[in-house]
Amino acid sequence: MAEPKIVTAALIIIGNEILSGRTKDRNMSFLAEELTARGVRLMEVRVVVDIQKEIVDAVNALRARYDYVFTTGGIGPTHDDITADAIAVAFGVGISENEAAVALMDKRYKPGEFTAARRRMTRIPHGGVLVRNPISTAPGFRVENVYTFAGIPAIMQAMFKEIAHELAGGDPVLSRTVTSMLPEGIIATPLEKVEKDHPGLEAGSYPFVRDGRFGSSLVLRSTDTAQLESAVTALKAAVIELGGTPVEE
Amino acid sequence: MAEPKIVTAALIIIGNEILSGRTKDRNMSFLAEELTARGVRLMEVRVVVDIQKEIVDAVNALRARYDYVFTTGGIGPTHDDITADAIAVAFGVGISENEAAVALMDKRYKPGEFTAARRRMTRIPHGGVLVRNPISTAPGFRVENVYTFAGIPAIMQAMFKEIAHELAGGDPVLSRTVTSMLPEGIIATPLEKVEKDHPGLEAGSYPFVRDGRFGSSLVLRSTDTAQLESAVTALKAAVIELGGTPVEE
Repeated sequence: MAEPKIVTAALIIIGNEILSGRTKDRNMSFLAEELTARGVRLMEVRVVVDIQKEIVDAVNALRARYDYVFTTGGIGPTHDDITADAIAVAFGVGISENEAAVALMDKRYKPGEFTAARRRMTRIPHGGVLVRNPISTAPGFRVENVYTFAGIPAIMQAMFKEIAHELAGGDPVLSRTVTSMLPEGIIATPLEKVEKDHPGLEAGSYPFVRDGRFGSSLVLRSTDTAQLESAVTALKAAVIELGGTPVEE
Repeated sequence: MAEPKIVTAALIIIGNEILSGRTKDRNMSFLAEELTARGVRLMEVRVVVDIQKEIVDAVNALRARYDYVFTTGGIGPTHDDITADAIAVAFGVGISENEAAVALMDKRYKPGEFTAARRRMTRIPHGGVLVRNPISTAPGFRVENVYTFAGIPAIMQAMFKEIAHELAGGDPVLSRTVTSMLPEGIIATPLEKVEKDHPGLEAGSYPFVRDGRFGSSLVLRSTDTAQLESAVTALKAAVIELGGTPVEE
């Protein structure tokens, strides 16, 4: 069996409003699901404040470690939108109004409404490739392996869909879930054995409470269909042996 | 005017299930709101995979930078629950079954049900102080400025409430929000001026779409009531001058 091809990613969420609790982030779970479905493993997420050095440090730490980095937030027209400048600093490149971005924005606004603040949104780090924004025009961009998206979920999702075909996914990670009303403390040892017996298998356990009783969802993940099938069979047998009723979800 | 007292915190969310999109995190927004209400500023959040080195590196990077660090997840009974060991490594201390934790757990379970897997949950880094778990007994713990909580939201929240009185909050950050149907591109420049004119004021802008039109919520934050009042007055005047109708939310 060939080594599975692993493709990784990280997400940087930029914005004081998430950290103050004012806004609930919805981009992390969206991106997690979309990447997983494409065979890209989201390995790390950082939420950072609107301070240039924090953004630069996070971008530089993560772009060196992972195949892709995505950022959300901080590319609007206001003075606290500093992501584009931070990306330029992280890559050591200049930043200025991008001609193509200016043309797009100019077409969108009526005469007199393309304000100085809105022109800020055409500033793109040099070497950046625009990412189309089908909702409100002001583009995102990519510099090398770092994609910079808007923070508003509808726009962020539209931007992701514009570039999703560019992502080179790894072998898809297949997943099966066996749920029962056995608590983790009972099923933990057999679960560990199933993982050890199946090379390349990752076994996770997620407890829940139903009608006042603890149960657990046991998630088995592998890039190898045969290994996964064998592991599910072994795990179901272990659940039954311990008096539980395994249900696949 | 005295310098405001700033107290900071970071959160480390441990768990592959968040990064795969299987589970939606609910602890970040809970902690963000609770800390903000107590005058503690959440400055950074990291979501990391269940790999010891990742957890250790995040704990050591953040505990040196912030007054408090909270971790969620990875203290259950299964083999992928490795947070307690990682905390011990991060602090360079040993780890073993904690007598008080064993006594608590022993009382909870019927004879024969206190399994080896459940005993794992009594392993606490040396020097750790237990955090009571009123829901399912297995305790969290604190080592120096790092609090380690369960990942299940109901248990995490209960653990936070057990220790909330210990947190030394800074001056509370007061917040006022002025909303109007002026888009960010129109209000951005006056907003920046209001921030510059009021020392210590932080101004943020959050766009939204309502009935197909862009509006914005402008959030002013300060520890100084008088500065904040003056800023709100100036901002409302600017909104009116631009033809908008300011609404305080």
